[in-house]
Amino acid sequence: MPKPLIIVWEGLDAVGKTTLIAKVRSILESRGYKVSTHKTPSSSKTGEFAKTYGNDPDVDHLTRMLLFLANTSDDSKILKRIIEEEAPDLLFIDRYYLCSIAYGFALSRLRGVRVSKQDFKIFVELVEKLGEGVFVKPDIYLVIDAPEEDRIKRLKMKVGQGGLESALERDQLMQQHVKEFYMVFKEMRPNEVAWIMNPQGEADAVADRIAKMLLEKLAEGAAQD
Amino acid sequence: MPKPLIIVWEGLDAVGKTTLIAKVRSILESRGYKVSTHKTPSSSKTGEFAKTYGNDPDVDHLTRMLLFLANTSDDSKILKRIIEEEAPDLLFIDRYYLCSIAYGFALSRLRGVRVSKQDFKIFVELVEKLGEGVFVKPDIYLVIDAPEEDRIKRLKMKVGQGGLESALERDQLMQQHVKEFYMVFKEMRPNEVAWIMNPQGEADAVADRIAKMLLEKLAEGAAQD
Repeated sequence: MPKPLIIVWEGLDAVGKTTLIAKVRSILESRGYKVSTHKTPSSSKTGEFAKTYGNDPDVDHLTRMLLFLANTSDDSKILKRIIEEEAPDLLFIDRYYLCSIAYGFALSRLRGVRVSKQDFKIFVELVEKLGEGVFVKPDIYLVIDAPEEDRIKRLKMKVGQGGLESALERDQLMQQHVKEFYMVFKEMRPNEVAWIMNPQGEADAVADRIAKMLLEKLAEGAAQD
Repeated sequence: MPKPLIIVWEGLDAVGKTTLIAKVRSILESRGYKVSTHKTPSSSKTGEFAKTYGNDPDVDHLTRMLLFLANTSDDSKILKRIIEEEAPDLLFIDRYYLCSIAYGFALSRLRGVRVSKQDFKIFVELVEKLGEGVFVKPDIYLVIDAPEEDRIKRLKMKVGQGGLESALERDQLMQQHVKEFYMVFKEMRPNEVAWIMNPQGEADAVADRIAKMLLEKLAEGAAQD
């Protein structure tokens, strides 16, 4: 069974990620490729538990991170099932374990814990090691970014989930910490991470560029087979 | 408000821990000390979720560890409430985050992941750092151990919880890994860890020895106040 090209979509909140995913998917499908998508936190048992209990404002930052990370780990079996049953050419994962860790570390900082970039790097590597045979291995991480003023405009339009989730989306310091941890990951994996700027009004052009990159990757893969 | 002496009880399964806890508690209470106890996994929401979903045989080792660790992290707020409301002289924690990590790493090994002692050490330290302000800080870790033949005899008498939990209790390689990770922790914190052998038939003498040690610690604490 051929392995799909596995793309993880990451980024701050309100950078236009959902719109981009839909546009890129549509371009690839128009070229005849089959694209499957999975979004976390999902509606699996661990996903629901993380979203409800993990977002309870009385829950501490560590418990919250562990619950969201448990969901991305646990959902790996859903990803494996999608690969087996749908046999897509590309699998889009809308936030994976990198997200759980980057947001978890950012919230820890926001709550006054002095976690360093090095701590983040080591933690990601240890989780990946512990998750050997559990996680599916992504080929590319697309980190979507946007100018801060565009992000703030989008936030105003967005209907949030409410609670802690929405408060954190609106917390600029929180988002700054998240961005910093994504940048650490880009330094760790320069060949796997593509950092994509998505300014307001340019989504079509950005989607075209991403689709082109993925088509090239698919061609490389086909050439290797 | 005076801080209680915080004792974490750890150890392999079927080493006689529960009996020892009851005996030591009774000795200390007969000397006029107030002892409060909390056992994890508990019946809190995260405890129930870990025990039910985390012990589902289809759940991978990483998700399982994260769910049990989330419970010990989350239950820290119960521990803080006990300290505040009951104001005990001693707080016994029957398994804490050390347990979640030692068993999680042991199961990872059992599933073929090559996690090292150094990985364990770094992971414990990172979790403690991330859990700053979350975990209560233990004064003493009592790691209860027993000769393997005694442990096997006790296992035969024990009514297990069933499922994966019971299978792991009976898996000697699993228990050997757990013991090795506890030993790493003892090397990390020689002044905080007391390794206690509890051979069959000697529980009263062992309980006396532990109680004596704790009474000395209490006297030291009182001398410092």
